[in-house]
Amino acid sequence: MNCKIVFIGAGNVATNLALVFRDKGFFVRQVYSLHEQSATLLADKLNCEYTSDYSAVVKDADFYFYCLPDHVLQTVEPVFAHTDALHLHTAGSVSGEVFMGKVENYGVFYPFQTFTKSRPVKLDEVPILVQANNRRNEEILLSLAKLLSANVVLSTDEKRIRLHLAGVIANNFTNCLYRLAFEQMQMADLPAEWLLPLIDETARKVHTLTPEQAQTGPARRGDMQIIDKHRQLLSTNPNLLNLYNQLTEQILDR
Amino acid sequence: MNCKIVFIGAGNVATNLALVFRDKGFFVRQVYSLHEQSATLLADKLNCEYTSDYSAVVKDADFYFYCLPDHVLQTVEPVFAHTDALHLHTAGSVSGEVFMGKVENYGVFYPFQTFTKSRPVKLDEVPILVQANNRRNEEILLSLAKLLSANVVLSTDEKRIRLHLAGVIANNFTNCLYRLAFEQMQMADLPAEWLLPLIDETARKVHTLTPEQAQTGPARRGDMQIIDKHRQLLSTNPNLLNLYNQLTEQILDR
Repeated sequence: MNCKIVFIGAGNVATNLALVFRDKGFFVRQVYSLHEQSATLLADKLNCEYTSDYSAVVKDADFYFYCLPDHVLQTVEPVFAHTDALHLHTAGSVSGEVFMGKVENYGVFYPFQTFTKSRPVKLDEVPILVQANNRRNEEILLSLAKLLSANVVLSTDEKRIRLHLAGVIANNFTNCLYRLAFEQMQMADLPAEWLLPLIDETARKVHTLTPEQAQTGPARRGDMQIIDKHRQLLSTNPNLLNLYNQLTEQILDR
Repeated sequence: MNCKIVFIGAGNVATNLALVFRDKGFFVRQVYSLHEQSATLLADKLNCEYTSDYSAVVKDADFYFYCLPDHVLQTVEPVFAHTDALHLHTAGSVSGEVFMGKVENYGVFYPFQTFTKSRPVKLDEVPILVQANNRRNEEILLSLAKLLSANVVLSTDEKRIRLHLAGVIANNFTNCLYRLAFEQMQMADLPAEWLLPLIDETARKVHTLTPEQAQTGPARRGDMQIIDKHRQLLSTNPNLLNLYNQLTEQILDR
């Protein structure tokens, strides 16, 4: 806990990780962002130093977290810190070896959650997948991650990318469905928030039932009459109709 | 509250509605199901009479709730009760006039929620859409529904079917995505329940952000490199790959 952490990036992931580390008693030494406004915003929350000048990033930290867009991670030059420093990225689908040959100690620290700056989230149950360039660093990262979450595992690139894909389906795509459902509410001239009890119950159900057990609806019952009524409603929106048909097929196939 | 209610059907909807009415102080007079086991199961919970003989359904109730599969509703002969009785179905996409010409007083009482027998749910915030064959019955149903929920509205067939479609998207299809994500977890050799913090946060987010604001992920960022990695993982599953592409397009199009 005496170790010093620097965050490279001040977006959704950096903000949430930094706040959790701070709350666990870690010392966030500095925040860097290309965008000074983002850097100050996060540094204010943490009451720590910040910089928007990459060459001014401090060299004496123990952990450097690179919370950067994936394409930036591919090319970023790691901070020229002391050789014991551990350089970590937090991305779901970027190789664990992007820092190979550039620094001595590197790895991945991937918290499996959807992060938004404005919504600090707890990590207690959030899976954290770690990878590192040697056994010693793996142990360090496992210990570090276990201070934040009960669900920690040593990973590989393959496992992490597969998990990321599961996350895209369960979060990004689900949220996209929420948007499409909200749009139907608007067309029905009903308040979109009337969907929330249903959305909540849908999520709660899979805590105690498998998704197979929780599945209901016309496709589950094979009720083609209702399905045809819904298709008619979507006849003016071929993309959505196509999506409706695909998801219906997925359920009918079971 | 002195009125008597009979449930025709003892499935997910009947079970949940009957328990809520009972808890609100109503008298559930009798439960009918073709399947005696279902009828006794619900009658035991309610401590009321049951029958699996349709001709033995009591004639003196005030409300008959037909919680039946959609195709059965199209053809069911309503109970030969006294003429003041109000005959209601609870389906999302069945016409409000299926009982027209068969009984004097009829309508729709559609609670917008996903119901499972084993999970009694509260209806306090659950939207209830009502329809009836005349103004007086509309008023009766609006009053009745308002005893159960804060979100009650007089509907039309069009509005209700559109809401049902929104529900299919937000519940049935979302649950289908949960299943597909669970399957990816299995392929990654990770516990499926590790998805739950993400699923929960995804649902919570749209309480305070719009789905547009809550959208994250590679498609939101237009990160084609990651999208291509995920496509490779799905190359052996053309249906899922097709679905991945469609949902990705929906997000990219924004």
